[in-house]
Amino acid sequence: MRAVDLIRRKRDGGRLTAAEIGWLVGGIAIGDVPDYQWAALLMAIVCRGMDADETAALTQAMLHSGAVVDLSDIPGPKVDKHSTGGVGDSTSLVLAPVAAACGITVPMVSGRGLGHTGGTLDKLESIPGFRIDLDVAAYRRIARDRGLVLCGQSAEIAPADRFLYALRDATATVESIPLITASILSKKLAEGIDALVLDVKTGDGAFMTRADDARALAASLTSIGRSLGTPVRALLTSMDEPLGRGVGNALEVREAIACLRGEGAADLTELSLALAAEMLVAGGVAVDRETALDRCRAAIASGAALERFRGVVVAQGGDGNVCDDPEAVLPRATRSETLRAERAGYVMRLRAAPVGQAAMLLGAGRATVDDRIDPAAGVVLRRKAGEPVAAGDVLAELHFNPPHAASVPAAVGLLREAIVVGDNAPASQPRILARL
Amino acid sequence: MRAVDLIRRKRDGGRLTAAEIGWLVGGIAIGDVPDYQWAALLMAIVCRGMDADETAALTQAMLHSGAVVDLSDIPGPKVDKHSTGGVGDSTSLVLAPVAAACGITVPMVSGRGLGHTGGTLDKLESIPGFRIDLDVAAYRRIARDRGLVLCGQSAEIAPADRFLYALRDATATVESIPLITASILSKKLAEGIDALVLDVKTGDGAFMTRADDARALAASLTSIGRSLGTPVRALLTSMDEPLGRGVGNALEVREAIACLRGEGAADLTELSLALAAEMLVAGGVAVDRETALDRCRAAIASGAALERFRGVVVAQGGDGNVCDDPEAVLPRATRSETLRAERAGYVMRLRAAPVGQAAMLLGAGRATVDDRIDPAAGVVLRRKAGEPVAAGDVLAELHFNPPHAASVPAAVGLLREAIVVGDNAPASQPRILARL
Repeated sequence: MRAVDLIRRKRDGGRLTAAEIGWLVGGIAIGDVPDYQWAALLMAIVCRGMDADETAALTQAMLHSGAVVDLSDIPGPKVDKHSTGGVGDSTSLVLAPVAAACGITVPMVSGRGLGHTGGTLDKLESIPGFRIDLDVAAYRRIARDRGLVLCGQSAEIAPADRFLYALRDATATVESIPLITASILSKKLAEGIDALVLDVKTGDGAFMTRADDARALAASLTSIGRSLGTPVRALLTSMDEPLGRGVGNALEVREAIACLRGEGAADLTELSLALAAEMLVAGGVAVDRETALDRCRAAIASGAALERFRGVVVAQGGDGNVCDDPEAVLPRATRSETLRAERAGYVMRLRAAPVGQAAMLLGAGRATVDDRIDPAAGVVLRRKAGEPVAAGDVLAELHFNPPHAASVPAAVGLLREAIVVGDNAPASQPRILARL
Repeated sequence: MRAVDLIRRKRDGGRLTAAEIGWLVGGIAIGDVPDYQWAALLMAIVCRGMDADETAALTQAMLHSGAVVDLSDIPGPKVDKHSTGGVGDSTSLVLAPVAAACGITVPMVSGRGLGHTGGTLDKLESIPGFRIDLDVAAYRRIARDRGLVLCGQSAEIAPADRFLYALRDATATVESIPLITASILSKKLAEGIDALVLDVKTGDGAFMTRADDARALAASLTSIGRSLGTPVRALLTSMDEPLGRGVGNALEVREAIACLRGEGAADLTELSLALAAEMLVAGGVAVDRETALDRCRAAIASGAALERFRGVVVAQGGDGNVCDDPEAVLPRATRSETLRAERAGYVMRLRAAPVGQAAMLLGAGRATVDDRIDPAAGVVLRRKAGEPVAAGDVLAELHFNPPHAASVPAAVGLLREAIVVGDNAPASQPRILARL
């Protein structure tokens, strides 16, 4: 087999067999298929596509490029959730302890934020002492003992995805439904889960701004996952507006803990519980969505979910007091600025992308993968879409530390662009657009 | 400027500016644009194309990636010829001394053979002592003193093309008219020539088998060359059947010398002189094609062309006696085999590609760039298309040395596939299909 012949076939719109795809992925580790050949192949895939069989074969090959964790010695269902990324999206921090409190083991492997989108690992690291770099043994132990574990991707899991992900980032070959499908599923299916729930976002702050594209991705993820024997459910959700009011790492942990106390933002709570309910149904611990939702609400009301969160924080080296007094435990920025309304009316629109960019400029995110983030920095949205505004009202607070003070005017400009005040309240938009 | 943004734009069908293309090509030498980013960009170019301005900018950038030779101190016109490659094509060895004898300086930089096609450098190296690796100083000196020079590409000329050519070969991104145009013209325009004549081949043994593709390439080469200020003429010629009767390195040198003596195969002589005549017109030493052809024929009849060939062979270290007694000077294979006609009739068709592949199997060519070639090996075609055949007549001779004896059955099979004997003589096919 020669890589150049396979690249040529894909370039000309042909199909690759499972054996050929397996050979190409296997050639990464042993050096038979160098990065430049993969780069050309990736671009050919972006231009010509891959069918369902090819996508499944690619997913399988990437999944088996490293360790595949076996959690079968842990009793009960193991279910994870994956989101395609958004702004202010701390649902993972809420739904994982909720689902765990309801009898699901949640072995969650997350990523970091990039650009205007946040990452669960960065949020967790704003809790003093919290360690996200676990080896497979610690991952298994904490999942078994605590019912949930929240960590980064081990080098042992899907190394082919790590290679291809970095290559795609450098070669403008990220935007491909087959490649995204294989990347997400290969990592997730290597975690040892029985089922997977996906939050596929669309709209201004999402990776896929067009709903059609996001729906096609959700369809690909669910059908390929199922064809590989893992039940996959997906919610198609709107990321036109940020979730909740806090955008920034410690700010979002604080907000997630408020949700776990039953005091969180309505939209963040609603979506977190909807996703948790899907996990309960997928894991077979609830017969239908309504029953599952009731159990999730009860886990919050009883405090069981919050205690699950405390348990995992402590198990991963963090300060458990964050559950009781987040203000005291989490880092706070030394400076702040406010953006005020220039006129009265209603927030007509609140665009997620510029809010995420503003938070990034204040130090909450990364422009490039090597940037360091400031866990305390970010934006608090005092008004969200549909809410009434008086002239002079605070629309948003900017939290930052002195090294990022020079970026405040640009961040204010982005927020002014993001928050549109007009005469009439907009029609209420559903957060959950479809279930697949 | 970031390479990933430019790759994305090309991926999405957009245009790149001359400054952007210049930055991308410049980034090869200084390491700013690594091979994997170029590989993705090349595939995007294959899939999405480049317009004339982009192709001209790419050619310019590659041309100026290395030394650009200035031959203006040599009086008179400097004209080269380039062929897109074929089987049995030793026209360069004929036309270069003919044009030189007519007052054109021919500073010819050639390549090696690959696959079923031959290369001028390999043919020249079958002359004992002949050196094709000249530095720029020797190239200038021999061109000035002898009126022609026949050598390989110096490392100083168009290094970006050397990088991209190897990368295209490994990434299935060879087949692209803009990329082929830039590769050919960047090298040729760096030679210091005043005009260029192209032999763009189509048909069974050509790189571009479809005449439409070859015509499009010829149109691209002539228009981009002219837009960069160098007059370019192209002949679109048929490579359905091999040129001449010898296919193999020493066999072709022998046949070229026969042409220079006025005793060569009709089709090889005719095409060589047609191309030489274009060079004379392009160089302004003949007013029209007919006058030019007459001068070319006179240069052969007078022996002036053969003496020019002797002069360059001697200047480049070769044995000048090859002009007087090629049989004695050139290497000969120790073994031979014949393929005989199974029935009487006419050669209906003689396909170039399997003949070239047969010669390659016998050691005359390379399957990969690292293979060594046997200068003596090859095929002699005793019957060509349109010629009558009696049952038992020798159709072809196979010349080989013992290390390649095991390949003889496969080569015989290819030749049997290549030479089609039928009841009627085929209509005569023109060799020159169009002039651009």
